[in-house]
Amino acid sequence: MHTDLVAALDIGGTKIAGALVDGDGRILVRAQRATPAQEDGETVMRAVEEVLGELSASPLWARAAAVGIGSAGPVDASAGTVSPVNVPGWRDYPLVARVRAAAGGLPVELIGDGVAITAAEHWQGAARGHDNALCMVVSTGVGGGLVLDGRLHPGPTGNAGHIGHISVDLDGDPCPCGARGCVERIASGPNIARRALDDGWRPGPDGDTSAAAVAAAARAGDPVAVASFRRAAQALAAGIAATATLVEIDIAVIGGGVGKAGEVLFAPLREALADYATLSFTRHLTVAPAQMGTDAGLVGAAAAALARRGHAAPAGV
Amino acid sequence: MHTDLVAALDIGGTKIAGALVDGDGRILVRAQRATPAQEDGETVMRAVEEVLGELSASPLWARAAAVGIGSAGPVDASAGTVSPVNVPGWRDYPLVARVRAAAGGLPVELIGDGVAITAAEHWQGAARGHDNALCMVVSTGVGGGLVLDGRLHPGPTGNAGHIGHISVDLDGDPCPCGARGCVERIASGPNIARRALDDGWRPGPDGDTSAAAVAAAARAGDPVAVASFRRAAQALAAGIAATATLVEIDIAVIGGGVGKAGEVLFAPLREALADYATLSFTRHLTVAPAQMGTDAGLVGAAAAALARRGHAAPAGV
Repeated sequence: MHTDLVAALDIGGTKIAGALVDGDGRILVRAQRATPAQEDGETVMRAVEEVLGELSASPLWARAAAVGIGSAGPVDASAGTVSPVNVPGWRDYPLVARVRAAAGGLPVELIGDGVAITAAEHWQGAARGHDNALCMVVSTGVGGGLVLDGRLHPGPTGNAGHIGHISVDLDGDPCPCGARGCVERIASGPNIARRALDDGWRPGPDGDTSAAAVAAAARAGDPVAVASFRRAAQALAAGIAATATLVEIDIAVIGGGVGKAGEVLFAPLREALADYATLSFTRHLTVAPAQMGTDAGLVGAAAAALARRGHAAPAGV
Repeated sequence: MHTDLVAALDIGGTKIAGALVDGDGRILVRAQRATPAQEDGETVMRAVEEVLGELSASPLWARAAAVGIGSAGPVDASAGTVSPVNVPGWRDYPLVARVRAAAGGLPVELIGDGVAITAAEHWQGAARGHDNALCMVVSTGVGGGLVLDGRLHPGPTGNAGHIGHISVDLDGDPCPCGARGCVERIASGPNIARRALDDGWRPGPDGDTSAAAVAAAARAGDPVAVASFRRAAQALAAGIAATATLVEIDIAVIGGGVGKAGEVLFAPLREALADYATLSFTRHLTVAPAQMGTDAGLVGAAAAALARRGHAAPAGV
């Protein structure tokens, strides 16, 4: 049997997406379910099994060599378990064993969702050709992943690159994670919106108080909206500079809803990076918007499975 | 000719140490000069050449297969140059080419001094057996290096692990590096002493205002001295937690003069780590004092040379 495909799962708090993906990252078959996030763990697992069932009904399934999973974190790749913050029914849930059983014994590769996005951007997106990169998702939360020495660096448990929860303000506001002044506590979409509202920004007639609405106001010149993005950019810059200082990255790729704000975010981010990335070996650092779309999680999970299988492995992933 | 040794150079702002080191990390021959740090670059280089000259006068020199250099940073391993902050005569100085010439054409391996210390602790010290480690020197400055996936991670330019200059207080005091609130700006020995003095601590009759004197006062229960170490520990904890969150280390080794303060530093450090290292995959993180002595820089430079040569390479370095 010719096994040139992999199955990919992208598991988040909202949806469970699945696909059969070829060695060029093309998605050939798709399946999707809403995540029953507030249900018990077995109910969530049944949704995963339905996605896998739909994929395995395809005649292409027979060509699948492995399953790659990118999951909301924290994950524990060494134990094969996941404990997604937004899926309380899964705590140390043995997702790898359950997926392996549901997938007829295929080998399973588990990584965190930030690491999956990074694998996708490195394979086919904005980090392509960069041997040392940080890829981030700035959205409801802030996640990320690392490419070091030309290869994905998931870390022993698959969580490396978790930039949203490094503290850049050690006396700052408490973060739900338990620490203070985390990048996410300052730069996530909800925190950009909250800060703007706290400082007197008011939404338009549509009542939209999302970070996207704050971005629109900032583009129109609203000084409070501009300041909230500037503060987010400062926190992102401190976190990106810390990463560059620790592991020598040369590009930071930013995706997610907040990443789509454009120059309202990127202009102050570049300025702030010059303030925080001061050592000689960090000064050439650039930032770029993500290029992969909503399939990044699936493509990245596929990349991880292909790379670990050594099978039609995308170079360097 | 049997080439089972390497030459090692440890180049700092105070002294230039050299040695011939065997595959077990034993120092067989030593040479040393004071660093003429305020002189022009050629004068500094002459001191290096004198050290190498003394080593090459040994009959053991014929067995040297390579030269390893650990240098005060920043270094640029990819360009073979160094620009040590405390040696103004060397800026983008072609140290690798000059050492190669002075060493009869032997291959030369250049790493930063924090990376060298890390190589030594991983080979023979407190990080031995740990596949993912941060090793730090907390002294006049704060430096460090990383072991990832069981191997030294110098980064493309040899500077990775530069934890002293990550910002943990993005609105904090300006740091000489140009950023604000860097770990070094809060936790280095001079900053521990300065903060204690600013807050009302006074030295004893000997007038000693060093961090070691503050540590002695803290051990005797002086609350201002205790608070200054506690603040340093908080900054170190935030930086160590950031590193664990980004690259999944499981141990942080702390050496240097401040690292010798003992429980005055380590007790609040462990407490603060629990505050900042909150994610599941960082909670098992431990801290330990460094085990290598003043020869760590030489032993680490030797380890890097041995590892790159693939010659009697210490496992995993």
